[in-house]
Amino acid sequence: MALEQVSSNKAFDGQLIKYKFKSAALGGLTANFNLFLPANSANAKVPILTYLSGLTCTEDNGAQKGGFLGPASKEGIALLFPDTSPRGAGIEGETDDWDFGVGAGFYLNATNPQYSQYYNMLTHVTLELPEVLATAGLPIDLTRQSIFGHSMGGHGALTLYLSSLLSGVKQYRSVSAFAPIANPTKCAWGQKAFSGYLQGGIEEARERYDATELIAKAGKEPVHILIDYGTADNFYKQGQLLPENFLKAARDTGYDEVQVRVRSQEGYDHSYYFISTFGEDHIHFHANFLKA
Amino acid sequence: MALEQVSSNKAFDGQLIKYKFKSAALGGLTANFNLFLPANSANAKVPILTYLSGLTCTEDNGAQKGGFLGPASKEGIALLFPDTSPRGAGIEGETDDWDFGVGAGFYLNATNPQYSQYYNMLTHVTLELPEVLATAGLPIDLTRQSIFGHSMGGHGALTLYLSSLLSGVKQYRSVSAFAPIANPTKCAWGQKAFSGYLQGGIEEARERYDATELIAKAGKEPVHILIDYGTADNFYKQGQLLPENFLKAARDTGYDEVQVRVRSQEGYDHSYYFISTFGEDHIHFHANFLKA
Repeated sequence: MALEQVSSNKAFDGQLIKYKFKSAALGGLTANFNLFLPANSANAKVPILTYLSGLTCTEDNGAQKGGFLGPASKEGIALLFPDTSPRGAGIEGETDDWDFGVGAGFYLNATNPQYSQYYNMLTHVTLELPEVLATAGLPIDLTRQSIFGHSMGGHGALTLYLSSLLSGVKQYRSVSAFAPIANPTKCAWGQKAFSGYLQGGIEEARERYDATELIAKAGKEPVHILIDYGTADNFYKQGQLLPENFLKAARDTGYDEVQVRVRSQEGYDHSYYFISTFGEDHIHFHANFLKA
Repeated sequence: MALEQVSSNKAFDGQLIKYKFKSAALGGLTANFNLFLPANSANAKVPILTYLSGLTCTEDNGAQKGGFLGPASKEGIALLFPDTSPRGAGIEGETDDWDFGVGAGFYLNATNPQYSQYYNMLTHVTLELPEVLATAGLPIDLTRQSIFGHSMGGHGALTLYLSSLLSGVKQYRSVSAFAPIANPTKCAWGQKAFSGYLQGGIEEARERYDATELIAKAGKEPVHILIDYGTADNFYKQGQLLPENFLKAARDTGYDEVQVRVRSQEGYDHSYYFISTFGEDHIHFHANFLKA
């Protein structure tokens, strides 16, 4: 799993570096990711915040359009931008749809034999990338990790955070999301993905990959969760996101506004214009816990 | 020249609106532009800062990747993002090269008959777009304009600012540029563009379209000019930018560091990661003059 540097760009006094490597989790395919290292990482290991991007995106969208690098530089936090799926598996039909297959890995480990050799973004993000960073000797303090994401990546961030919490591993200190797919077993995007990737389909997903189901089980654990969504978001209006279901489950479980904060942002949509507006705020939210 | 709204995205409490219209300056072709209106434009006309993008770009690059919207929102300044050339003229060969023709209009008015019907980005940016904004009743105060840009757009910003100053029109209060093509009659990009677009070729360009030539003539006029370039910029290293020539001409003409500030930024390259790092600083520079 030797890392190869693809490019490096100085940004906000730090470096945004693109790497590639042969990913075991993704069946030996080449995987790209971006890593932002703030200037202070020259002197000491820094905490790391992973950003999971949405449908059709790559490792570049968040780095280029999220407005995260400046605030992360000020806070002294590294940012990790994984890709959104394996690329080049050659599975029949995997490039036919924009919301399934390539660009749409849904941050799960596939159990359907057609996809399970390659589509293991859960392992890629939670285990393989941290291992690769550590092996390469990069100045990252893996005891201080948080995670956030957008849309499908918001689903990924919430489910990876909550499932790690429930398992007792507690890999991430905090989670936030922009317009997350918050109850995917109840929306068309999630149902399509789970039916395709998982042998047990939606039933299998309910146990592991639905943030609304997971938060209902987490009632005794302290959590740090921030969600923003826009009222002009067409996917919200179409019922693909369902943040209100997540909020209700969180409140029913006993979480208050300090532990689970879900904010409706008037007039904002699903785009990176929305994300970049609140990006700085999300970085500061995570910094509270990463630097505690 | 009726304006048609293509899309609108709320961003930083304001609106980023994409418009299209049939552009007389561009021979009747459809032209797109983005306009960011800060929230305070609901109550009063706001100053406007025009951003000219570089080779291969469209009206979207600066809006999506520049990091300008947040600072402009705080300052209460509108941002105008024109395209970089006419599109759809159908002139033979206009899409063959990335540094000439489509995506590479160089912010001039072509005099070569092959291009002069369509390639009039100077008129499009300086006269037509302000006219279109005013005609549409948009809340823009055209007595308070400034301009900035990147690479080819830095060339455009400097030359439009200086030629307007020298003509006595003084359309823009201040100019700034990221990695501008600052002496285009002396570099390959400029020589190719001028030889193609201008009947009088490089000689014609020297009079009108070369910032280093123009600053040498401006010695009695007060100016407000800020330029940043990166020492790791490959186009700088290849001699395409030549900011040192512009700086020398400015100093020879008698401008001091307050009037003409050229900053060498250690380790930065030609990308939007560089631009976004200093974007906020450039917005604040212009706000000093736009809000004076």
